[in-house]
Amino acid sequence: MIETTIIEEKSIKMKNPILIEGLPGIGLVGKIAADHMIAELKAERVAQLISPHFPHQVIMQRNGVMRMIKNRFFYVKGKKNDLLILVGDVQAVTSEAQYEVTGKMLDYCQKKGVKLMITLGGYGTGKVQPKPRIFGIVTNKPMAEDYKKYGVIFGESKGSIIGAAGLLLGLGKIRKMPGVCLMGETHGGFVDPKSAQALLEVLCKVLEIKVDLKKLDERAKESESFAKKMEKEAMAAKGMPMPAGGKHDLSYIR
Amino acid sequence: MIETTIIEEKSIKMKNPILIEGLPGIGLVGKIAADHMIAELKAERVAQLISPHFPHQVIMQRNGVMRMIKNRFFYVKGKKNDLLILVGDVQAVTSEAQYEVTGKMLDYCQKKGVKLMITLGGYGTGKVQPKPRIFGIVTNKPMAEDYKKYGVIFGESKGSIIGAAGLLLGLGKIRKMPGVCLMGETHGGFVDPKSAQALLEVLCKVLEIKVDLKKLDERAKESESFAKKMEKEAMAAKGMPMPAGGKHDLSYIR
Amino acid sequence: MIETTIIEEKSIKMKNPILIEGLPGIGLVGKIAADHMIAELKAERVAQLISPHFPHQVIMQRNGVMRMIKNRFFYVKGKKNDLLILVGDVQAVTSEAQYEVTGKMLDYCQKKGVKLMITLGGYGTGKVQPKPRIFGIVTNKPMAEDYKKYGVIFGESKGSIIGAAGLLLGLGKIRKMPGVCLMGETHGGFVDPKSAQALLEVLCKVLEIKVDLKKLDERAKESESFAKKMEKEAMAAKGMPMPAGGKHDLSYIR
Amino acid sequence: MIETTIIEEKSIKMKNPILIEGLPGIGLVGKIAADHMIAELKAERVAQLISPHFPHQVIMQRNGVMRMIKNRFFYVKGKKNDLLILVGDVQAVTSEAQYEVTGKMLDYCQKKGVKLMITLGGYGTGKVQPKPRIFGIVTNKPMAEDYKKYGVIFGESKGSIIGAAGLLLGLGKIRKMPGVCLMGETHGGFVDPKSAQALLEVLCKVLEIKVDLKKLDERAKESESFAKKMEKEAMAAKGMPMPAGGKHDLSYIR
Repeated sequence: MIETTIIEEKSIKMKNPILIEGLPGIGLVGKIAADHMIAELKAERVAQLISPHFPHQVIMQRNGVMRMIKNRFFYVKGKKNDLLILVGDVQAVTSEAQYEVTGKMLDYCQKKGVKLMITLGGYGTGKVQPKPRIFGIVTNKPMAEDYKKYGVIFGESKGSIIGAAGLLLGLGKIRKMPGVCLMGETHGGFVDPKSAQALLEVLCKVLEIKVDLKKLDERAKESESFAKKMEKEAMAAKGMPMPAGGKHDLSYIR
Repeated sequence: MIETTIIEEKSIKMKNPILIEGLPGIGLVGKIAADHMIAELKAERVAQLISPHFPHQVIMQRNGVMRMIKNRFFYVKGKKNDLLILVGDVQAVTSEAQYEVTGKMLDYCQKKGVKLMITLGGYGTGKVQPKPRIFGIVTNKPMAEDYKKYGVIFGESKGSIIGAAGLLLGLGKIRKMPGVCLMGETHGGFVDPKSAQALLEVLCKVLEIKVDLKKLDERAKESESFAKKMEKEAMAAKGMPMPAGGKHDLSYIR
Repeated sequence: MIETTIIEEKSIKMKNPILIEGLPGIGLVGKIAADHMIAELKAERVAQLISPHFPHQVIMQRNGVMRMIKNRFFYVKGKKNDLLILVGDVQAVTSEAQYEVTGKMLDYCQKKGVKLMITLGGYGTGKVQPKPRIFGIVTNKPMAEDYKKYGVIFGESKGSIIGAAGLLLGLGKIRKMPGVCLMGETHGGFVDPKSAQALLEVLCKVLEIKVDLKKLDERAKESESFAKKMEKEAMAAKGMPMPAGGKHDLSYIR
Repeated sequence: MIETTIIEEKSIKMKNPILIEGLPGIGLVGKIAADHMIAELKAERVAQLISPHFPHQVIMQRNGVMRMIKNRFFYVKGKKNDLLILVGDVQAVTSEAQYEVTGKMLDYCQKKGVKLMITLGGYGTGKVQPKPRIFGIVTNKPMAEDYKKYGVIFGESKGSIIGAAGLLLGLGKIRKMPGVCLMGETHGGFVDPKSAQALLEVLCKVLEIKVDLKKLDERAKESESFAKKMEKEAMAAKGMPMPAGGKHDLSYIR
């Protein structure tokens, strides 16, 4: 296998779907938010993405069955818009790999008729905030107004968005697929379920849905140790040096 | 040459063949077991696999003739099932390379009608065991029962299986090729013929064959120094730093 | 996306165009000169180049809109020759990537009928010069005479030209596209608008155009911090170690 | 450009040509020998090979004209056999690159009807020898007898042959192109024209030609500094760390 491959497991005809992306990134903010949505909304798995750019190993599950390292697409039926939620174990760690993987994701989104992409992430400030703010970046300027209504702050976040959360918007824009990246304010040096909660609260308003937040902390804990292990494997598989200490340092988790 | 290539040297029509994979890995457990089977069962070489992902060098043999670094498929006639045994000098060291090489192996297995894949490896515990146990992982849950009968332990091994032993199962499952990985318990820091012996004993029961184990230690010693050299070359060819000390640290020998 | 892609935004029929290349390089000499030309000549953007070999991230702009990391082609109407000016955020950092990107640039240049390529760069001497000289290298010996008239020095610069400034000439020559590289003498350890100015003065004479140089210093300052950040990202995305200290050390900025 | 490309400059019909390969390697033994043959035999350049796996830079020549980094094929008319001599600035430094480049070389050799390949190299022993011996390795056992007559030693060299000198034989054998690698005994830590001379003396007997050896030392000196610079560039372009000290440490110069 030399190409990233998306295997559609259930072929559902979707109604004006919105993509919600929550792959591992800064503070795992986006991942925690998206994983939690999937669990609470009882989303249905519809496709899996496997890639030669992911670590070359399989995971031993407690039931004695192995599984590949992968990304997954889940489906939630909605009123105006169905949701297609993208989550996963890992992101690719080099530019070439990220571009290839993101391109395949966009192919699938186009095939399913995705009308809007909302990518989730953390925005690292090096500080702990009692009430994390939500920053936004759009592909097309007029879109920002829609999100300002929900308290999303535009024009104050600086630097760059690394990985799928940014590239989906960048490469999507070229394909005329509009998108917004919503980022929860976070320290950046540790996993932050509180920022994920703030992000989810805004996202629920945007999507006009309800998600129970009670079990969020618990789920975040499960995510943490697994994500750290995956990070190490991904770096090792590319011959990249791992930093000392326990910090998340994958290229897309900076 | 830009693609991994399998050159079939003898085109044998096989009867419900089972693939046995024993490439270099943790403690060289799988490699020693498979190399020993080939020698004792007088298996016949039927194909060789060469790859641009293997070190870019040829080996000088004692007879003054060079040979490529490669993987090899051997054939053993069986009663119910023929055996196709996969062994080799080295594994690819990056994810992209492992996926490509494994895909080519699966192509060949499918062409030969392989019904089941048994991949062999070591399971590192950091401890020396007087009586190494055998752990198993399957592609499909019901398969585990077949192996429990022979003392294989399911659900107790944790983490991930790196390299071809894992990926053959992961990518094979997508092609509807079932498989099991059998792992001999081992320290992980050195070559372990004792674990290989325990693994072979179980494997012989599973396959209903007999393999004389007298010369196992001797063969293990030959494997060791060559495998260490190959490991160094593979890392060097990717610009990966080699660890200090004599430990096996190839990405798939962790 | 797996290939570098040039997206033509305005399809203008050009008159005997000359390519002027000023991507980031030693002392940012070429980049400052070309960026300044674009601003002062009110050049029109006609194409953008995006590449999986550039960092896998998007830039958050002050207006709340993201943009890809890219290279850009600008157009200026001329008397005898139109100008096609190539500038950008970053260059690819590996050989394979540079060859691919440069090949795509040449494809576009050929399509637009480019008759001559002038690539701009710095020539690092480790010394600060009160009056930087301009060194030149040509694809075809007789061309040198044209530039000596303007004080360009041939045969005194040694070593090699790294990145697009060199490869455009090397790969262009094979396609029968002649070119010259003009290099402003510079220390090499810091951004040098003074060398860029000396380079622009010669270039204006060569092209028989006028460019106001008043705002050059100001523009150079803007370039500096952004270029340093891009450099870091490009290295990080390839797993390359960053040097200590603030020096520019991208492979094409040596 | 994404593929290694051989550009034939003179299309000569060759008579049972023998390929002589002398690219940079251990002690530059092969390179010095082949470069010297080309100069003394007034060989004619017939083709150049350029590759995205070579450093992404062009060389500034003293005459003010740039040139690409490349490998070159030279032609010498012979009695029984014409000679096709392959030399160059550099070799590719990763496995994938070496396999690709070597494949292209073999394509060209097949097209020109090459009947035999003689690759030249050094065999590093860590010792200085007053009278360097010549070691040989063949693709097919019976061939060794032809070379033993000239004092070439078979079966005493150990380890592996890295780079084109080995891979040309390995990949050539699969295409039914026989070959021999002749290696001059050398220390391995420095450039060794004396070993190159011993190698040339044997090679001349094998080929039944005469080559004046007076200017060999002088040429070796020219090769040395340039080859070291190229080595550094090739490593840097792959993000590989350079060793401290002045030793040759390219992967194919070990």
